[in-house]
Amino acid sequence: MGQQPQKVPTPTLERVATYLACLMDLDGRGVQTVSSADIERFTDINAAQFRKDLSYFGEFGRPGIGYSVPELMRRISKILKVDHEQPVLLVGAGNLGSALAGYPSLSREHFRIAAVFDNDTEKVGQRFWGLVVQDIGKLKELNKKQIRARIGIIAVPAGAAQKVADLLVDSGVSALLNFSPISLRMPAGVTVRNVDFAQELAVLSYHLDG
Amino acid sequence: MGQQPQKVPTPTLERVATYLACLMDLDGRGVQTVSSADIERFTDINAAQFRKDLSYFGEFGRPGIGYSVPELMRRISKILKVDHEQPVLLVGAGNLGSALAGYPSLSREHFRIAAVFDNDTEKVGQRFWGLVVQDIGKLKELNKKQIRARIGIIAVPAGAAQKVADLLVDSGVSALLNFSPISLRMPAGVTVRNVDFAQELAVLSYHLDG
Repeated sequence: MGQQPQKVPTPTLERVATYLACLMDLDGRGVQTVSSADIERFTDINAAQFRKDLSYFGEFGRPGIGYSVPELMRRISKILKVDHEQPVLLVGAGNLGSALAGYPSLSREHFRIAAVFDNDTEKVGQRFWGLVVQDIGKLKELNKKQIRARIGIIAVPAGAAQKVADLLVDSGVSALLNFSPISLRMPAGVTVRNVDFAQELAVLSYHLDG
Repeated sequence: MGQQPQKVPTPTLERVATYLACLMDLDGRGVQTVSSADIERFTDINAAQFRKDLSYFGEFGRPGIGYSVPELMRRISKILKVDHEQPVLLVGAGNLGSALAGYPSLSREHFRIAAVFDNDTEKVGQRFWGLVVQDIGKLKELNKKQIRARIGIIAVPAGAAQKVADLLVDSGVSALLNFSPISLRMPAGVTVRNVDFAQELAVLSYHLDG
């Protein structure tokens, strides 16, 4: 069909990542087929929205039968490029870094924390979830020569985040997950996702009565 | 003008929370007025999108002058209900809970972690960011009689998340920030936001070349 890829809105991609997590759950429980109504029940995302989101990426499912769970899972995994192992650099060996390194669903989507870095000499050399904390001064060389990760996670205090982001980009990383509550200034071609816990709470707070 | 509030899409609310963080930054630096082009430069969100997002909530800014930073900040704070202190219950005193309790921007938006709970007897009674970890068995009574928080954070392993969510709702909480990688089944009237780190990385991964 030679369909030309069109720009996919970020909220669509976020929902597609949610469908994938749901499909992985279902697949793990041996479920073979799923309807868009089932997806709505499991994810709280409207069935029509689900079908519209998938339509960005081609044709899926069969009328009256629904979707094959293993096939849809495989196709979405390929679309999101989580069908093969992806090394990730983690900067910041504090509480948040530790929570991330131990987060259970990363490996299910083939993300592997390949190395963890810190600038705190007391942390460098310590064991960290099966890794050893590396000096941040070694990040560039390690990534250029060895790891070749393209994704980096910034789990450092706000004051250090821009410098860490610059270093990651200079080391070949082009996608950043930023947990510090600041806006990073980045060159074109670098994708940034910000997770700010205060903003998450603010969106919840909006929905409270009174 | 007696404008009737309309249902605001979640991506709009997320962007509005981003504008607020940006305005707080500017205000902290003493900036008095801002244009939609400035907002685009600081947040990477298109100026037209910014104006459209604000239009859900009334009229803002003055043609040729722009927006007053303190006034826009104050009005958005009120819209998101972060203009007054909001107590928050945190369940899970692990690494993630600790990262959340110490997260710097929470207090700026008037969120106060009022209590932290765990079911691990080794953690209960320990000091935790100026609090003491409470036994989860005390959550309901403490919240009903004393704290009256309406927001809860779930930072526990996936296997315990549904039970913790049910307990929080039973204790008067109606807004949940869920960090476990499962979909919670919740009664109507409860707002849930899921933060799944694997999904965040998957959205980044989509944008990688090849």
